[in-house]
Amino acid sequence: MSFTTGPLEMTERTLRDQARQLVFHQDPAFIEMFDRASHMLQAVYRTRHTVVIMQAEALLGLEAAAACLISPGDVVLNLVSGPYGKWYELYIQKYGGQAIELAVPYNQAIDPDDVRRMLRRHPGIKFLSMVHSDTPCGTVNPVGEIGRIAREFGVVTIMDTVSGLAGEPICPEEDGIDLAVAGPHKFLGGTPGLSLLCVSPAAWDAMERRASPLRGSYLSILDWKDTWLAQRRFPHTPSVGEVYALESCLSQVLEFGLDRYAARHRLIAEACRAGARGMGLQPWPASDAIASSAVTTVHLPAGITEDQLRARLRERYGIMLAPGPAIGAQVFRMSHMAKMAHPAFLTAQLAMVERALADLGAPVRLGQGVGAALDVLGRWEF
Amino acid sequence: MSFTTGPLEMTERTLRDQARQLVFHQDPAFIEMFDRASHMLQAVYRTRHTVVIMQAEALLGLEAAAACLISPGDVVLNLVSGPYGKWYELYIQKYGGQAIELAVPYNQAIDPDDVRRMLRRHPGIKFLSMVHSDTPCGTVNPVGEIGRIAREFGVVTIMDTVSGLAGEPICPEEDGIDLAVAGPHKFLGGTPGLSLLCVSPAAWDAMERRASPLRGSYLSILDWKDTWLAQRRFPHTPSVGEVYALESCLSQVLEFGLDRYAARHRLIAEACRAGARGMGLQPWPASDAIASSAVTTVHLPAGITEDQLRARLRERYGIMLAPGPAIGAQVFRMSHMAKMAHPAFLTAQLAMVERALADLGAPVRLGQGVGAALDVLGRWEF
Amino acid sequence: MSFTTGPLEMTERTLRDQARQLVFHQDPAFIEMFDRASHMLQAVYRTRHTVVIMQAEALLGLEAAAACLISPGDVVLNLVSGPYGKWYELYIQKYGGQAIELAVPYNQAIDPDDVRRMLRRHPGIKFLSMVHSDTPCGTVNPVGEIGRIAREFGVVTIMDTVSGLAGEPICPEEDGIDLAVAGPHKFLGGTPGLSLLCVSPAAWDAMERRASPLRGSYLSILDWKDTWLAQRRFPHTPSVGEVYALESCLSQVLEFGLDRYAARHRLIAEACRAGARGMGLQPWPASDAIASSAVTTVHLPAGITEDQLRARLRERYGIMLAPGPAIGAQVFRMSHMAKMAHPAFLTAQLAMVERALADLGAPVRLGQGVGAALDVLGRWEF
Amino acid sequence: MSFTTGPLEMTERTLRDQARQLVFHQDPAFIEMFDRASHMLQAVYRTRHTVVIMQAEALLGLEAAAACLISPGDVVLNLVSGPYGKWYELYIQKYGGQAIELAVPYNQAIDPDDVRRMLRRHPGIKFLSMVHSDTPCGTVNPVGEIGRIAREFGVVTIMDTVSGLAGEPICPEEDGIDLAVAGPHKFLGGTPGLSLLCVSPAAWDAMERRASPLRGSYLSILDWKDTWLAQRRFPHTPSVGEVYALESCLSQVLEFGLDRYAARHRLIAEACRAGARGMGLQPWPASDAIASSAVTTVHLPAGITEDQLRARLRERYGIMLAPGPAIGAQVFRMSHMAKMAHPAFLTAQLAMVERALADLGAPVRLGQGVGAALDVLGRWEF
Repeated sequence: MSFTTGPLEMTERTLRDQARQLVFHQDPAFIEMFDRASHMLQAVYRTRHTVVIMQAEALLGLEAAAACLISPGDVVLNLVSGPYGKWYELYIQKYGGQAIELAVPYNQAIDPDDVRRMLRRHPGIKFLSMVHSDTPCGTVNPVGEIGRIAREFGVVTIMDTVSGLAGEPICPEEDGIDLAVAGPHKFLGGTPGLSLLCVSPAAWDAMERRASPLRGSYLSILDWKDTWLAQRRFPHTPSVGEVYALESCLSQVLEFGLDRYAARHRLIAEACRAGARGMGLQPWPASDAIASSAVTTVHLPAGITEDQLRARLRERYGIMLAPGPAIGAQVFRMSHMAKMAHPAFLTAQLAMVERALADLGAPVRLGQGVGAALDVLGRWEF
Repeated sequence: MSFTTGPLEMTERTLRDQARQLVFHQDPAFIEMFDRASHMLQAVYRTRHTVVIMQAEALLGLEAAAACLISPGDVVLNLVSGPYGKWYELYIQKYGGQAIELAVPYNQAIDPDDVRRMLRRHPGIKFLSMVHSDTPCGTVNPVGEIGRIAREFGVVTIMDTVSGLAGEPICPEEDGIDLAVAGPHKFLGGTPGLSLLCVSPAAWDAMERRASPLRGSYLSILDWKDTWLAQRRFPHTPSVGEVYALESCLSQVLEFGLDRYAARHRLIAEACRAGARGMGLQPWPASDAIASSAVTTVHLPAGITEDQLRARLRERYGIMLAPGPAIGAQVFRMSHMAKMAHPAFLTAQLAMVERALADLGAPVRLGQGVGAALDVLGRWEF
Repeated sequence: MSFTTGPLEMTERTLRDQARQLVFHQDPAFIEMFDRASHMLQAVYRTRHTVVIMQAEALLGLEAAAACLISPGDVVLNLVSGPYGKWYELYIQKYGGQAIELAVPYNQAIDPDDVRRMLRRHPGIKFLSMVHSDTPCGTVNPVGEIGRIAREFGVVTIMDTVSGLAGEPICPEEDGIDLAVAGPHKFLGGTPGLSLLCVSPAAWDAMERRASPLRGSYLSILDWKDTWLAQRRFPHTPSVGEVYALESCLSQVLEFGLDRYAARHRLIAEACRAGARGMGLQPWPASDAIASSAVTTVHLPAGITEDQLRARLRERYGIMLAPGPAIGAQVFRMSHMAKMAHPAFLTAQLAMVERALADLGAPVRLGQGVGAALDVLGRWEF
Repeated sequence: MSFTTGPLEMTERTLRDQARQLVFHQDPAFIEMFDRASHMLQAVYRTRHTVVIMQAEALLGLEAAAACLISPGDVVLNLVSGPYGKWYELYIQKYGGQAIELAVPYNQAIDPDDVRRMLRRHPGIKFLSMVHSDTPCGTVNPVGEIGRIAREFGVVTIMDTVSGLAGEPICPEEDGIDLAVAGPHKFLGGTPGLSLLCVSPAAWDAMERRASPLRGSYLSILDWKDTWLAQRRFPHTPSVGEVYALESCLSQVLEFGLDRYAARHRLIAEACRAGARGMGLQPWPASDAIASSAVTTVHLPAGITEDQLRARLRERYGIMLAPGPAIGAQVFRMSHMAKMAHPAFLTAQLAMVERALADLGAPVRLGQGVGAALDVLGRWEF
């Protein structure tokens, strides 16, 4: 079993839908499916903004946002509460922007009041970049509050919601989110090879008003406006099979219900934290209020390294966890998204972590973690 | 998740192998695959006896054994330690045999000494029928000892090993097993639509020496001798896709190693019993020594019915258990075969049973069952 | 490519539907699917008679019909226009019946007037057995007319419609068909491991009024009445994956439209005969009016054997044809059912036959067969 | 059926291999598979140069070549024999290069002597860009001769071999190919979402010696050198399922044999041209010597537009052709790659084109095209 941060196991339905024979991308049936997937993506983003399905992993979308929006000299407020936030500085700089950083320790979330203070102090700020859910830390930022503040200042926002979309609800229009980028391989439980963008009128405007708008490039979001949005044709050959999988995942999430889907993940995450505490371990986030529904990052017991734990799980029990992140502390990550957001999978994961920790000599009382999680799962109704 | 007594979830490899496009059954590639599957089935039966893959569920094979062997007036010693043993009497009678029953309570196993006594007392006994593992009860009979005794008396044995093959080791030659019938949907983790027969020379002889050997019928085992074994053609169109799945399962079991496969199931079953006891419940079999590696039948807590437990698991948690058997006591069954014979699946099953029992008001201390199972699983090495 | 008489290639949709993970046969979802498949099967049979989906290849259903209906001494009029008709005599005799044969040469169809004459001449006839479409010959009998005559005489009819159902329209109620047996692996394009029965009240009555109705056997149709029809449970474990495939095929046929489906096969068969004639070859049936929509049986050119042709096609071009039947003449068979009933596949098949015949030295003018077929296919509208 | 220029139908084996459950990209099993796929890609490229599997459609790889190699002011000789050649000028200019064009009419191939003349005349030329097989035209350039000339002049070559790899043999080392870019969805018969690069030491050198080598971008080839090639980790999450499909396709091509695979496509293309001529139509390439093995571009009969032909084929017969290219003439394209490079599929395609042309009123004698193709296919031996 694989309890990683994505790609993770697809549901049987997604697997089968993805396994369809390839059709030519200009076949009317494919055009129609792409259109349907686009509309469902809008629904999952809870938006009427246009969406764009770029044809490579989410990192392409994140880079494209910088490449299409930022011109040399533009000042960008970059919010840093984890490694992905820090990384975005590289894109800002690559495309000529000047990054102003607002950072917090990696077990905390950004305080919207600090954002307001920064925007007041630096009236030249044109863009604000932030991470919705910084996967390595298992923490979530209050992106809605931040986005609404940014809008007051006329600042265009870029949001990495790769591990946020479909699990941590937002509403782009109300929340002042101008260019959001997600991936299908986290909460949606799909394949990794697509970037799921949501683009506000302000973001389109910013791209088009640049001195030299980016066109004719794999990094160009405008190319999709000129071809797909305007003419229902593609700027290049799309990944047909990945679109099959995306359409399938989106259908499943919408059939399940967006609010129910988020609530289900929230409960599973709560049960996972209870499970960790039941084993005597502490979650990494400073408070449960900022803990992610996707991933639970947990302090390791003294004397056991993350490599030891993962190796034991993989080699002895066939269980794959994602590597613990480089965040300056001995932590490991349990993941519980999509197919894995289920009591049976969560208790299996906790049980195997208990077993592996005990194998490695940790003073775990077997069953205590699972028991604590089961207690929370008494509220399961999904 | 499905923790039933079969058909149960196939491994991904079996699923994909089964999903191959159909070929015509007279295509040389299919003939070759059928041949390969037959040889692997021999290996799994640990035998050089001939094997026959009849083209319908195991019940066909069991009826075929009676239909092909038993002539009117033949005396058959029928061993009864559970519902399937009792049922065989119907076939014996349908085909004109006279059944002598040797029965024990359904939580016990047949005593070989009793068999010897019966065979001594009734020298006219021609056949002995027995069940290797009576699935409803979760108990195993000492079929090797019994078979060797039968051979002393020149009695031809018929063995239902539907939920025995690949999990409860025997050796037909040494153990005096003349006609064994298994199904691919239990320990092998395959599809249900085939009967897997192992036929000794004595059994062939008994079929052919009958006054009117059964030929030209779907129930005829001899038809397979005349066509497939003699001429590499089929008496009727075989179920191509079921053979794909069978060939895949057999490969997987043989690659894993027969002894290792049995040992793995044995440890999982031991952990399951420990888990049940950890929850304060008692296994149904009179002793652990006769407990099945396939299924663990457990007494329910007072005041909770089997229907309630299964309904709660299915409706609230999406967990399917096989219905508890009609064996005159309030019991339920946990199954742990093939793909499900893994610590992650076993602990998931135990955890969900704990949760559902607690939901129904049983005085379960959450996590205790899983903890007890995890303790046993410290010896996992598969 | 496989142009055999079945099993033949499944459509992609059937393949994917069949590839679903197994569920337990007592799972409510499976019960519901089996029920749905049964209702669709009724629709495809164009009947309100009950249908029974027996769990093994159609030969089981055909034998079951004899086993359940015929009592020792019963007189059965057996119509023989091909090998399958002849074969049924064996079942009649095995179950104690007395067969009266009405035969025609294997390139002709039964004349209903002859049936009437026989029924008049032999007032003791209780059953009439006939083959709807005798696959080896590629001919169709006027089963509707025959059935209506049988009804006049109070004779219960048994019809082998294995390669008739869904391609050669009939209506059991109007046409006096009492017990029909089909398979999913011919016109329906499914897997071979099921028998699809349609049972009239008169047939049920005949089974139940026997001195000793057949129950408790894999051959018992009444077992299905007592369990599935009465209580929505199964007499034994059904072949879950085969039912998936059946449900998928039936859906596809019904969505396509029953009349359209038959018309499409009729046109393809007409084009195939034109193609054969275009190559200078003669169809085997005495007239086009009795030619099957499933299979076109064709005389071979002088000097070329059927083995040579099939071997050349298989080894050089990867094309599989079903072996030519033993009907006393040098013929071969082209098949065009289900997925293969399409102009692209038909022309491919004809082209490859042309090429192979030329390779073997036949005086074929390449392209003439395909051209003649294409001429007919100008009327394609499916 | 789909006879498009890619993505086209995958073989059943590729389909099933692609349908495997996703694993985490850092799972050792995936690392090993990626490594294996890389080695097989080298074998298919017939090279010891390093290969890079970039994670988006081939257009990414083509842009990446320009982005990584070309610095502002660099002079690039761009060879233009079709639309893709012409398009490359845009990338040259986007990354600051100065393009010198050597063009021929779109039904001709580049003359190596002209290349030599241009290189002599413009000693400042640093790079040469060319298209191996310009898919819209169905023509092939003598890239080996051109590459060897370029090497004499110390010019680094960029080659678009998207529809060349595995069908039109070259050898990068001998042929002076420095940076080749292919896609898996043409001759290989895979999914479209990957770029398959082959990078010579000279090309690596040119990338690294730039004033500011491109790093930290989805367009960076050097990122793959720094991560995958140096450390067996990925610069971003790869498209796991697309890699499954690639590994499968490469295995199949290598098992078939590289030379045989190319020869097979060559014969099919020859038969396709014969088929077109048999229908009275003329291939577009100026000579058969420069005709592609992937695609046959053909002049339409007078009075019939390409849209009409494709619409008829798609709507009436379910046959999908790729849209005819904008090359200033009324042409259409037949494609015959990978799975479709088989006599049965080719004759089916030709037959359906004949039928559709006749439907539209063209004076086609039905069967003549197929007959002419069958004549050539007498040499089939694959």
